[in-house]
Amino acid sequence: MSLIVVGSVAFDTVETPAAKADRVLGGSATYFSYAASFFGPVRLVGVVGTDFPPAYRELLQSRNIDTAGLETVEGKTFFWRGAYEKDMNKRTTLEVDLNVFGEFDPTLPEHFRDSRFVFLANGSPRVQMRVLEQVARPQLVVADTMNFYIESQRDDLLKLMRRIDGMVLNDEEAFMLTGASHLVDAGRKVLAMGPKFVVIKKGEHGAMLVTPTGVIVLPAYPTDRVVDPTGAGDSFAGGMMGYLATQEVFDEPRLRRAMAYGTVVASFGVEDFSLDRFRQIGMDNIRSRYEQYRAMLAL
Amino acid sequence: MSLIVVGSVAFDTVETPAAKADRVLGGSATYFSYAASFFGPVRLVGVVGTDFPPAYRELLQSRNIDTAGLETVEGKTFFWRGAYEKDMNKRTTLEVDLNVFGEFDPTLPEHFRDSRFVFLANGSPRVQMRVLEQVARPQLVVADTMNFYIESQRDDLLKLMRRIDGMVLNDEEAFMLTGASHLVDAGRKVLAMGPKFVVIKKGEHGAMLVTPTGVIVLPAYPTDRVVDPTGAGDSFAGGMMGYLATQEVFDEPRLRRAMAYGTVVASFGVEDFSLDRFRQIGMDNIRSRYEQYRAMLAL
Repeated sequence: MSLIVVGSVAFDTVETPAAKADRVLGGSATYFSYAASFFGPVRLVGVVGTDFPPAYRELLQSRNIDTAGLETVEGKTFFWRGAYEKDMNKRTTLEVDLNVFGEFDPTLPEHFRDSRFVFLANGSPRVQMRVLEQVARPQLVVADTMNFYIESQRDDLLKLMRRIDGMVLNDEEAFMLTGASHLVDAGRKVLAMGPKFVVIKKGEHGAMLVTPTGVIVLPAYPTDRVVDPTGAGDSFAGGMMGYLATQEVFDEPRLRRAMAYGTVVASFGVEDFSLDRFRQIGMDNIRSRYEQYRAMLAL
Repeated sequence: MSLIVVGSVAFDTVETPAAKADRVLGGSATYFSYAASFFGPVRLVGVVGTDFPPAYRELLQSRNIDTAGLETVEGKTFFWRGAYEKDMNKRTTLEVDLNVFGEFDPTLPEHFRDSRFVFLANGSPRVQMRVLEQVARPQLVVADTMNFYIESQRDDLLKLMRRIDGMVLNDEEAFMLTGASHLVDAGRKVLAMGPKFVVIKKGEHGAMLVTPTGVIVLPAYPTDRVVDPTGAGDSFAGGMMGYLATQEVFDEPRLRRAMAYGTVVASFGVEDFSLDRFRQIGMDNIRSRYEQYRAMLAL
């Protein structure tokens, strides 16, 4: 398995009705790579400022995450601050400082260029494309995006969409990107833009896979300990790609199982702030919860 | 199987962004009984005015629905008018005229009193209790409720909840009833009020079953032809109770399968206005879609 991810590495300050976490390790590439690392090694491409603690880099390295692509440049690390309401599906972004991430122009380490599995996490479609162009012979390329880029860099995003195999985005983004008002319809419209499959994330309501041959919906795993949903979508993608990177073919049954692994991995992630819950578990915990999830859905 | 339902029988005027249906047959007991009738005979308890067309009564009778408990009294039938937004999860009630349903005081026909399966559809908890008291030896009693009664007749509702086996309600109602802000927590709090199981309906996001031993979440069947969601929750309950009424025990695997049948039946119902889609299908269509649903969830 040679899985590469590009995305943000950040400090997050998260307020929930019950607790607060101050300047903890976050970012799309962080959550993704840690979640994927349960399945095998991950190559991380990103940028941090000189304020990024060595301990955070070591935390990633200790999990089979190759941080050779995590540049340090003069300045401050991406910072995000947000607050969740009592209904944890609702959050407000209170502060975003892109800092060094705003000028990010990634150059891949030589030994990253033979990566076969590519995940382009949340980020500018231009940066996503630049990474993709540096991978010699990608076998499976999946990209995420977000509202900001759908609105401000739509042409670049559409260009990228013609180069990828799969797309992962949330329901709101799918509606915004396609103009559809029904999820299945949104999924089909995404396929018409290029990708061979799309996974639409619905937060606590699970996820929908749309392929040219069908529609699959899986529910979220019903954990009753939701401490912090930040990064759940990225952890989902990490579990999904982590599983796919252990496979040879990517047919519907494999994609479905990949979604299920993503679901289970993400359900652990929300049980504490930052990577704290992930740090307590191993692949055995993931397998055991996967079995419970499988049994729950067996009719 | 001897399944009895009490609830509303109504005229609905429904506006969606794409179409409009004027004074079509609706009401919780209507949707419930038609949906349940795929599985076996149903006994309907309700009230209509003198404006209720004989053809509607015949439509129900033609489906093995015993309408001996559907009283006709001087006055007008319950009328509801509502409009859906582009996002079909959002609807506004524009008009409600309870009419004869407002003074409904049901007396069960003698031959309804031996019913073993009881569904108390949306309606005043006092009316629900009055029906329950007239059933000699109920084996499985399940009740629905709604915001209005949770607010205005809470004591009666709590009294009823100590007499029932199961409860079916939507997410918003579960939060209102329990004060919880997380669905699993809401489910557990409902159980503490009396029922042995609760099914929380989440609309297009599926449903959650909470029992003392666990939590089960199933997604909605992803139909791509949502014409009118009116009555979907009642059709879900009808499919669920219709299936349960063919069973002898009501353990978790049975409840899960019952939820799945409810999900599949409801997915047909939303594909047209009123009972129009149901009128075109039979148990073979339900079985075939159930198989697709089962395969979709097989990991």
